[in-house]
Amino acid sequence: MTRDKKISELGEFGLISRIAAGVFAPDNVITGIGDDAAVTVTDQGMQLLTSTDMLLEDVHFRRRWHDPYRLGRKSLAVNISDIAAMGAIPRWALLSLAMPSDLPLNFLDDFTRGFLSMAGEHGVTLIGGDTCSSRSGLVISVTVMGEQLPALILRRSGARPGDDVWVTGTLGDAAMGLKLLEDGCVPSPLTGEGQGGGDYLVSRQLDPTPRSAAGLALAGAGLVTAMIDISDGILADFGHIAEMSGVGATLRLNDLPVSVPFRTAVRAFPQFPHHLVLSGGEDYELCFTAAPIHREKITELLKKCSLAGMPVGIVTSSPEVQVLDADGASFLPKKQGFNHFAP
Amino acid sequence: MTRDKKISELGEFGLISRIAAGVFAPDNVITGIGDDAAVTVTDQGMQLLTSTDMLLEDVHFRRRWHDPYRLGRKSLAVNISDIAAMGAIPRWALLSLAMPSDLPLNFLDDFTRGFLSMAGEHGVTLIGGDTCSSRSGLVISVTVMGEQLPALILRRSGARPGDDVWVTGTLGDAAMGLKLLEDGCVPSPLTGEGQGGGDYLVSRQLDPTPRSAAGLALAGAGLVTAMIDISDGILADFGHIAEMSGVGATLRLNDLPVSVPFRTAVRAFPQFPHHLVLSGGEDYELCFTAAPIHREKITELLKKCSLAGMPVGIVTSSPEVQVLDADGASFLPKKQGFNHFAP
Repeated sequence: MTRDKKISELGEFGLISRIAAGVFAPDNVITGIGDDAAVTVTDQGMQLLTSTDMLLEDVHFRRRWHDPYRLGRKSLAVNISDIAAMGAIPRWALLSLAMPSDLPLNFLDDFTRGFLSMAGEHGVTLIGGDTCSSRSGLVISVTVMGEQLPALILRRSGARPGDDVWVTGTLGDAAMGLKLLEDGCVPSPLTGEGQGGGDYLVSRQLDPTPRSAAGLALAGAGLVTAMIDISDGILADFGHIAEMSGVGATLRLNDLPVSVPFRTAVRAFPQFPHHLVLSGGEDYELCFTAAPIHREKITELLKKCSLAGMPVGIVTSSPEVQVLDADGASFLPKKQGFNHFAP
Repeated sequence: MTRDKKISELGEFGLISRIAAGVFAPDNVITGIGDDAAVTVTDQGMQLLTSTDMLLEDVHFRRRWHDPYRLGRKSLAVNISDIAAMGAIPRWALLSLAMPSDLPLNFLDDFTRGFLSMAGEHGVTLIGGDTCSSRSGLVISVTVMGEQLPALILRRSGARPGDDVWVTGTLGDAAMGLKLLEDGCVPSPLTGEGQGGGDYLVSRQLDPTPRSAAGLALAGAGLVTAMIDISDGILADFGHIAEMSGVGATLRLNDLPVSVPFRTAVRAFPQFPHHLVLSGGEDYELCFTAAPIHREKITELLKKCSLAGMPVGIVTSSPEVQVLDADGASFLPKKQGFNHFAP
């Protein structure tokens, strides 16, 4: 066994080589890691899509919960999710890391393995980035670029009154997973298949799955009018579609899909935690709108992507987003999304 | 006078609107700030160049030295410099900010004004980014994208034995400026024209000028074999050209260009601080190689960009980079570049 090396023993160029060692570039990468800028080629006729997210230790993640492998996966996943939400093909990523100089080299290696595993699953190539030291915690900044034919790109604008509001997968799992972690649940080591209920919820928090195949399929089918990924809860995120499309919606509380592990975990609550379903962040599911006539086609198309999806409401011309309970009464949610700058 | 508002009073979307208010998008921006990803169009036949840099408070800058306006300018300038060093046209930028929640709104406004002023000077459009809260200092992550015809892109590889080694502008000014700040020099308020010697050096540290017009002109002329920007000192940065090109060089110590304010400031030193010229960081000048036959053309071309430039050495086939003093004796520099992770 070698002793636990720190990243400070390696130097910046040693670090970069170590990260770059696992990268294999396809033809659309002309120059990858190692020059002043990366050089890539967008396919003929395609437009370029770019998204970026920053993750800070003790703001977006805690090292005692987020093991480096899954942290690496998640830091790329949240950006791939943005590209997926535009219906585009994710292609290239930049990774910037500000690291405390006593960070164990093992941490960086596991983080990189995780990042590159997520990249591999979605056809993304790491083409560059930046490394520097941090005097406080770990800072991760990721930029992902993708491409798509102009006519197929899906925006937040475009929703029309009468459209169904759809969501993929289930809502609230990641928020419930975070709650379990906050309540002292210890994340299981990476076991692969066969995780229990609590583990499932925690893994939806620590290792979310960007819906890039579904996003791409929906864009290709030309059935969807507007799309966004659910990072801050459906209320806040559909709110962006509503605002950009100049519409509102009526969402049916009882139709919002929740998982079996979520229903099990809910038993510990004095009452059903609707706020986790409506405003819990980080599910990274897709929320989109489409004419009701396309219901069957969309269900089938999502099934081909091994993903469930269901209509959960109707787009309205009046600009409010309201939530109706089983009796058709208006349900007032407790809080909306997450305000980073709340005092 | 309004009281000094904090960013926490505005919320994430208020912040984004405030930053976006100063942005005017050209035709190559299809969708700018405000969707899951930005959508842009690369000109027909051009390749895409992407570079990213992260700046951390108390690592890369100090708020008591770096006023927000020049900090905004510099955070974009260092990335434009990378695109310039590839001989490409800078086009689009992403700006991510992690901010302490008690950051004054004035700081953000001045930072944004500075960032957008630099963007405007170089034809760059801000198309997206991320804002979040930081529990420690300010963190700035900027990604810049540019484009260029494949045949014109200049890389670190390509230098040939016998080529001249060129540098633009003067070396060591930014490092001397940093030294003055460290020694207690108070940066002058922004006075525009007519700054004195110390002010000039400090402003080269706080507000560097990316050489994008010169980089582009050099690429267009097809005379240059390899290029890099000098961010860590000519020794370290030419070292990258040497490594990627499989060459070395002999640099002439006395030909390395220094400014009049630098020569004046040097009088306070017991001996000439060669290490600031050879290994001082953040000048953001260009270092490139070209056959000696092109000397006149290159000088003229740089003059058209209002920039001086001179050959300072010769590329050699042996892989060492050596520095010769006036007597032709080998000069051993004290330190090479800056190691972020030095213990």
